[in-house]
Amino acid sequence: MTLSDRVEDLRSRLRAEPDRARITVRTTAALEGGMRCEAPFRRHTVVADEPPSVGGTDTAPNPLELAIGSLATCQAITYQVWAQILGIKVDRIEVDAEGDIDVGKFMGTAEGAEAGFTGIRLRVRLTGPEDEARYRELEEAVDTHCPVLDLVSRPVPVERMPPG
Amino acid sequence: MTLSDRVEDLRSRLRAEPDRARITVRTTAALEGGMRCEAPFRRHTVVADEPPSVGGTDTAPNPLELAIGSLATCQAITYQVWAQILGIKVDRIEVDAEGDIDVGKFMGTAEGAEAGFTGIRLRVRLTGPEDEARYRELEEAVDTHCPVLDLVSRPVPVERMPPG
Repeated sequence: MTLSDRVEDLRSRLRAEPDRARITVRTTAALEGGMRCEAPFRRHTVVADEPPSVGGTDTAPNPLELAIGSLATCQAITYQVWAQILGIKVDRIEVDAEGDIDVGKFMGTAEGAEAGFTGIRLRVRLTGPEDEARYRELEEAVDTHCPVLDLVSRPVPVERMPPG
Repeated sequence: MTLSDRVEDLRSRLRAEPDRARITVRTTAALEGGMRCEAPFRRHTVVADEPPSVGGTDTAPNPLELAIGSLATCQAITYQVWAQILGIKVDRIEVDAEGDIDVGKFMGTAEGAEAGFTGIRLRVRLTGPEDEARYRELEEAVDTHCPVLDLVSRPVPVERMPPG
């Protein structure tokens, strides 16, 4: 099956059974001493650590890098998915992503600041045979459908689960 | 140096030079065919892929798992950092994190839905010798200072960078 066939096949199945699209993504992250922390998902593990300056062993990206990484990769993959849906040819997709943060808030040395990113910037570079108008059409579709772009742009309600 | 000494050492340096705490976290994510995508940070690489059903090769977590993973690990690491700052003993930190999403929006089969998580839930389990009141004190400090919790709870302005 081509990539485009796979995407269309999944779309057909989700149209037939829309409940299958409503999923819960879950993990238990565990930390024992130091800063290194592992969070399993299916057959994968997301690992975070901190540089020695923060008390870690720098064996993995830190959680801020994972957050910007999730945004950048979600943008790139959403470009690939929507290129298939719209029938737009793209040879290479590159996404520059950057986020500004004052980590003084995290460390308790800058109480006034916001704890998270104060601003995020994105730049997408597409290589392929289509004209500018088609790539702009693709960009608009991606901005509407990219899950992690929505996560960072919109406040998501966070609740505490009862002890268990 | 103990973990607590490292954290205090970094706090002293950030108090002396608060500008050093204002950083930009950046990457360029690249995708060539398929869904596998790599985003480098310093000496690390954040890798995302999708299962075969979405046209990927399932060699890595997907971006939604990276996002929930960044939240869960950021919570755990912020607990460790603030346990040092507040002098609260913790032997083991576990964070359950889950997010609900309708991926029909991402795939274009459920146009009404929101593209990202509609709700996120957290549960923290701490093991150690301190009483409940001290662990509640720690939890309150973490809720104020955790960067990725702030990222998901608060809308962050996202801008397009000029072509380059």
